[in-house]
Amino acid sequence: MSDTVSPLASPFPALPQIAGVTPRVARAGYKDWGRCDLTYVTFDEGTAVAGVFTRNVCCSSEVEIGRDNLAQGSARALVVNAGNSNAFTGYRGREAVEQIMAQVAEHLGCTKEEVFVSSTGVIGVPLPKDKAREGLEKALVAQPCSWNEAAETIGTTDTFAKGATASAMIGETKVTISAIIKGSGMIAPDMATMLGYVFTDAAVSPAFLQECLSAANTRTFSCITVDSDTSTSDTVLAFATGKASNAPLVDANSPGADAFAAAIHDVCRQLAHLVVRDGEGANKFIAVSVSGAVSDESARKVGMAIANSPLVKTAIAGEDANWGRVVMAVGKAGEPADRDRLSIGFGGTWAARNGLPLADYDEAPVAAHLKGQDVTIEVDLGMGDGAATVWTCDLTHGYISINADYRS
Amino acid sequence: MSDTVSPLASPFPALPQIAGVTPRVARAGYKDWGRCDLTYVTFDEGTAVAGVFTRNVCCSSEVEIGRDNLAQGSARALVVNAGNSNAFTGYRGREAVEQIMAQVAEHLGCTKEEVFVSSTGVIGVPLPKDKAREGLEKALVAQPCSWNEAAETIGTTDTFAKGATASAMIGETKVTISAIIKGSGMIAPDMATMLGYVFTDAAVSPAFLQECLSAANTRTFSCITVDSDTSTSDTVLAFATGKASNAPLVDANSPGADAFAAAIHDVCRQLAHLVVRDGEGANKFIAVSVSGAVSDESARKVGMAIANSPLVKTAIAGEDANWGRVVMAVGKAGEPADRDRLSIGFGGTWAARNGLPLADYDEAPVAAHLKGQDVTIEVDLGMGDGAATVWTCDLTHGYISINADYRS
Repeated sequence: MSDTVSPLASPFPALPQIAGVTPRVARAGYKDWGRCDLTYVTFDEGTAVAGVFTRNVCCSSEVEIGRDNLAQGSARALVVNAGNSNAFTGYRGREAVEQIMAQVAEHLGCTKEEVFVSSTGVIGVPLPKDKAREGLEKALVAQPCSWNEAAETIGTTDTFAKGATASAMIGETKVTISAIIKGSGMIAPDMATMLGYVFTDAAVSPAFLQECLSAANTRTFSCITVDSDTSTSDTVLAFATGKASNAPLVDANSPGADAFAAAIHDVCRQLAHLVVRDGEGANKFIAVSVSGAVSDESARKVGMAIANSPLVKTAIAGEDANWGRVVMAVGKAGEPADRDRLSIGFGGTWAARNGLPLADYDEAPVAAHLKGQDVTIEVDLGMGDGAATVWTCDLTHGYISINADYRS
Repeated sequence: MSDTVSPLASPFPALPQIAGVTPRVARAGYKDWGRCDLTYVTFDEGTAVAGVFTRNVCCSSEVEIGRDNLAQGSARALVVNAGNSNAFTGYRGREAVEQIMAQVAEHLGCTKEEVFVSSTGVIGVPLPKDKAREGLEKALVAQPCSWNEAAETIGTTDTFAKGATASAMIGETKVTISAIIKGSGMIAPDMATMLGYVFTDAAVSPAFLQECLSAANTRTFSCITVDSDTSTSDTVLAFATGKASNAPLVDANSPGADAFAAAIHDVCRQLAHLVVRDGEGANKFIAVSVSGAVSDESARKVGMAIANSPLVKTAIAGEDANWGRVVMAVGKAGEPADRDRLSIGFGGTWAARNGLPLADYDEAPVAAHLKGQDVTIEVDLGMGDGAATVWTCDLTHGYISINADYRS
């Protein structure tokens, strides 16, 4: 964890324990630091698993193997290494992951495919197998830890620990979700990466758990950006132990399925926002809401073009209601748009409607809105019913300092 | 022009006069400044014209009208307004452009369609028609000016005037090209925009002139980026007066066509590089060469993903040979690539080959290379024969200062 905490930080919430899930941490010493850097979470037998991974084609062995392991649908353990991403390390990186899987499988008496591994940190350096083995030996027999400790241990350049919780009623049964995440740059493969873990006691089939996670991902993790750079290791995994003994959810028609899907979505949205709130150099949290697009996906793409525009992000950093830069970003998105139907506002006040600056535009409320930490940009394309909201942070001197002054 | 000159600035070259082309400048007073801000260039009858324009769908009236006017193939005048882009101004913006075209057409006795207009500067404010009319009245009767004066007058946030020249032999006849450009952010629609003008005395059909310009554009202007933001007003126009009296070039089979196309390409490449050298906040000029791609276009896209990555650009600003960030950018480009065939180098020294860091990698020559102003990044994908080079600049505190501290 960094010494300087993001001005947008949220305190770590009170996360409920999840029956059938036990987190532990230990120090492998992947970097020359005094902190714990290996997180080990075990699951009781019968735990379903689902996951979404980076689309970066130069992904890590952890991502490749994790994607394959999802097929059999169950999980007994999760291992997260912090301080070394093990990416771009060829066969030696793959050997390190397989060693960890074998060591845990032997200890728990499960299959290797039920052990999921993530790594985050510097790239191009194979994960040291001796440190992984010794660190894991300590973790296997460590006392269980709190969610807060686990959330701190998976972090690298993060400036605060991040967690979220939600619950849902399935019939008369309450199911609970606790989740942690790390991430600060949306991506910086040698420094930071987004890794998220969602734990629930719900009884849910792997297929439906995957359906809920994928649906939530589309509207949460896929709708945030810090710097437009996509990590080689991004991973979000969901684990469901079934210990709540609810009537099992097998598909969207199961009673309570909607409530469970909504709770998963809620937790993923909270986690995604926390990553943006810890964006490198961030001083402002920006929500970009796009309506009137030809489809929801088109709205998302326009929103991401705005959220990724350095000129929009620096304008917000400068508290400047520069809607001309928003026009530019809409136009470069490559999605259907019509300059003469385009409307743009900040904080609920329209600056331009239907392709023209408003004659009676009052900049005072907009200027006041932009001085706050939470900024909204509203865009209506006037083309159709598609809508989406995406989230980002401003682009500041802090981002340059973090990324240009760092040496690999 | 800004007071602080880019450390990468080039002195304005000695540009030859082009027979049949006469530049003039005047002060319209689009902003509250003492400098000239209206450029007026006339062409003798029989001048062919070609152009390439922004793909931004929220483009300005100047771009829409200019694109339409190209169809008839001839030009008698060019008017460039600096200080107001006239973009996103609806029908009032369009009226201002049509007034300028009519005023010049009446003066020269030509058609409105033979008058080309560009504007650059703040957006959302209709170009004031009275200032345009009075400024143009002065320009119509002004003394001819130098290329250097014209290049300064089309500039806005540029820190130095930019020009380039080339020549070609067509049979026994020498044809000459002089060209000027403005641009500093690849784009910032309220501050900066790329406008380029190429003038030649060659006799060339509009169709073949367009073919040469479009081909050059693909490998020059389409291969540069400062900040990934695409202007609403980007325009490059080429004018050919025919005064050299060479055997007319009508297509690629005309004798001398290759030499002329090469000279147009040469001038466009020079202009494109000058824009990057004046990139907002730039301290380093970066060439990214990608080879081994499945096609040239695929190589260009991978190169642009690298050149647009904030993490790669900040690493170069920090003189850090952070090839892990290059791996990430290759992987996020969405083009065919294979982590285990990927090689990455800086300044001609490989840091990683075939998916693995080099065991005997010597960082000393790379560190020395990165301290210079001209940096090269070499990427070989090991997939095929496609290759491309793209150009960008580093991302520095200067970029943030220029764009976050500015008020619209």
